[in-house]
Amino acid sequence: MEKLHQFISAAFDKVEKQVPIVQSITNTVTINDCANIILASGGSPTMAEYTEEVEEIQTGCQGLVINIGTLHPLALEAMIKAGTKANELGHPVILDPVGAGASKLRNDAVKKLLEEVNFSVIRGNISEMKAIKSGEGTTAGVDASPLDLVTEENLEEALLFAKELSAEVGSVIAVSGAIDIVADAGQTFVIRNGHAMMAKVTGTGCMVTNVIGVFCSVVPDQPLEAAVTALTAYGLSGERAYQKVTEENSGTSSFRMHLIDHMSKMTAGTLLNGMKAEVYS
Amino acid sequence: MEKLHQFISAAFDKVEKQVPIVQSITNTVTINDCANIILASGGSPTMAEYTEEVEEIQTGCQGLVINIGTLHPLALEAMIKAGTKANELGHPVILDPVGAGASKLRNDAVKKLLEEVNFSVIRGNISEMKAIKSGEGTTAGVDASPLDLVTEENLEEALLFAKELSAEVGSVIAVSGAIDIVADAGQTFVIRNGHAMMAKVTGTGCMVTNVIGVFCSVVPDQPLEAAVTALTAYGLSGERAYQKVTEENSGTSSFRMHLIDHMSKMTAGTLLNGMKAEVYS
Amino acid sequence: MEKLHQFISAAFDKVEKQVPIVQSITNTVTINDCANIILASGGSPTMAEYTEEVEEIQTGCQGLVINIGTLHPLALEAMIKAGTKANELGHPVILDPVGAGASKLRNDAVKKLLEEVNFSVIRGNISEMKAIKSGEGTTAGVDASPLDLVTEENLEEALLFAKELSAEVGSVIAVSGAIDIVADAGQTFVIRNGHAMMAKVTGTGCMVTNVIGVFCSVVPDQPLEAAVTALTAYGLSGERAYQKVTEENSGTSSFRMHLIDHMSKMTAGTLLNGMKAEVYS
Repeated sequence: MEKLHQFISAAFDKVEKQVPIVQSITNTVTINDCANIILASGGSPTMAEYTEEVEEIQTGCQGLVINIGTLHPLALEAMIKAGTKANELGHPVILDPVGAGASKLRNDAVKKLLEEVNFSVIRGNISEMKAIKSGEGTTAGVDASPLDLVTEENLEEALLFAKELSAEVGSVIAVSGAIDIVADAGQTFVIRNGHAMMAKVTGTGCMVTNVIGVFCSVVPDQPLEAAVTALTAYGLSGERAYQKVTEENSGTSSFRMHLIDHMSKMTAGTLLNGMKAEVYS
Repeated sequence: MEKLHQFISAAFDKVEKQVPIVQSITNTVTINDCANIILASGGSPTMAEYTEEVEEIQTGCQGLVINIGTLHPLALEAMIKAGTKANELGHPVILDPVGAGASKLRNDAVKKLLEEVNFSVIRGNISEMKAIKSGEGTTAGVDASPLDLVTEENLEEALLFAKELSAEVGSVIAVSGAIDIVADAGQTFVIRNGHAMMAKVTGTGCMVTNVIGVFCSVVPDQPLEAAVTALTAYGLSGERAYQKVTEENSGTSSFRMHLIDHMSKMTAGTLLNGMKAEVYS
Repeated sequence: MEKLHQFISAAFDKVEKQVPIVQSITNTVTINDCANIILASGGSPTMAEYTEEVEEIQTGCQGLVINIGTLHPLALEAMIKAGTKANELGHPVILDPVGAGASKLRNDAVKKLLEEVNFSVIRGNISEMKAIKSGEGTTAGVDASPLDLVTEENLEEALLFAKELSAEVGSVIAVSGAIDIVADAGQTFVIRNGHAMMAKVTGTGCMVTNVIGVFCSVVPDQPLEAAVTALTAYGLSGERAYQKVTEENSGTSSFRMHLIDHMSKMTAGTLLNGMKAEVYS
């Protein structure tokens, strides 16, 4: 963990110095939250998403996030163009396969994206990740199916699943939920930061994918560590936000605000004190 | 009212147990608020809106909300497909005819939707509702015309109007404003919850339509009572939010947050204590 | 400045009496913020943006704001139609050239808009404004390039630039940043309200353009003074918001809320006490 701690300190420094421009092609539901969390994480967002300009825009960026939450007819082409350009330029590309498994359109889109673009990290809930592995749908809507949830009981199985999926698709796999898992083919991390109220606000998944995008943009060769940094920092922000909600007896909308607030104040020091990450072999 | 009170207690229980998945095809302005208010009301939102997948998505849901706030060229087809599928499956469908009366495009869209889809509830402001009845425009923009507003003076007339419109279109009619009216062909409710600051935040109308969607999804056969439950719970949340704004001397953006917060904390007990609903014959 | 102060008092009165309906054709990232800031400034927003209805909608409005943040294939046509109609009706039209300079698509769109529509005010950051003048790109993303920023050292040069650009395009030029500049061909204002945290929230630029839209709608013949009123009122709201963030030790999402809150509470009296505007010859 010593190496991870050094990585985190260096990564926060790099974000602060570089203010990486991250292009985020995302859904219409959480696009504002995605832009604001990129800013709160220390990056500069550009949400340009139309086919004609995405390559030119990506050229001026350091990273790309693709989210299929509200796929419209032209979106897939734009995503592939931007992703291909990012791959050419050596910029990290992060995928958020929202609702994979819930419709053929989404399953096909994910399949096509995986064929055409190399992703540094794929971040989703466990049901979405299972849909990617099997290529079939098991869920309705955009929340994880209760049957799929990662618990202390099935954790070993879930770790193995993530590792195998990573080997199969060649990307770091980040599974978020009550317990988060980050894995590549060789190494896995288990993260116990976060709070259940994160599931009561739309876009908390989309947002953390963009935080991963910010950290990957400054350390493109270490997507595993970048994803761990993002998930722990964001999860810790969620814990602090919930604490604030409890103190003030507020609710889910206040929680969202405090979550972004805490992300905007996060430092390497705060994170190293509050992170709950374990490494598995 | 005894029966209504029992209904409310049972409805809150059902939402908590079922966590209904509600598909909401809505506008780009308030889509995030719509998703968050579905969550705050105890449901799980899916905002999938593209023609190719809307039927498949609706199959995994318990209800559908359609909002024409920013109609784009492909939206109407998707709305009709999703609505027809929901009708087939016996899922309740709720319509929010934003800006009806303000353009021919919107009037035509509403006409077409009423022809093709059976709506359990239609929720709008009084000007939108008048435009539906007459098929003609009387308003500019998306707020109710000052000339149309429901007041204590013209309340009887407005109640009659709502009842007649309900009989004509076969849907429960929910007219929101300073005084809310919920009517079917036989019965009408007058609701005096809410606060004027709700008109100073965009999407407060769109949001309550989604709250109706959540309650209708768990009691599809009682859309009248579900709409009364939603409007009173939401209006009461608005009152509490305004009280908080007064205490802290804040403003309209804080009001929005507190409104959603209070909805996220609403219980049957709180509602039964604070609701101001009267039944008319 | 005596005349400006009288203008401001009169303008706030007019907004309060008229509640101008402002149509805002904007991007999907900040559309909700744009609608809410129009409400907070005392106007009524309509975000209708589809080609078929934009002229009819504009007819019922008093002003139009056009923002090219997320240009989609049909948007430019709708913008030109709405803008042409607004020009015909004598309604002020305000342009926010988001990301001008960052892609050919955006440069071409701005060029086309300037050819087809007469703008009362153009509001952007300094890099966007330079791209308009040169017709060429100098930036990446949507934030101003660090090399372009207006400082006390290059202020004279920036004032001259704004004046010349105004003469060239025939619109009031509002350049926002750490120091704001508002200029027409004859007169320039320098505004020192605002706070650096405004750059840490998405949409703060888009929002102020809509505040300009609200004030221009009630005094269409004085776009220079309307823009100064909007920028000072909004900047002052930003200062107060930051003060609140400091008091409560919160973060960027709280800042956004307090910014809109303070705009919703802004009065002519508050503004006249707190504005920091100087007039140059």
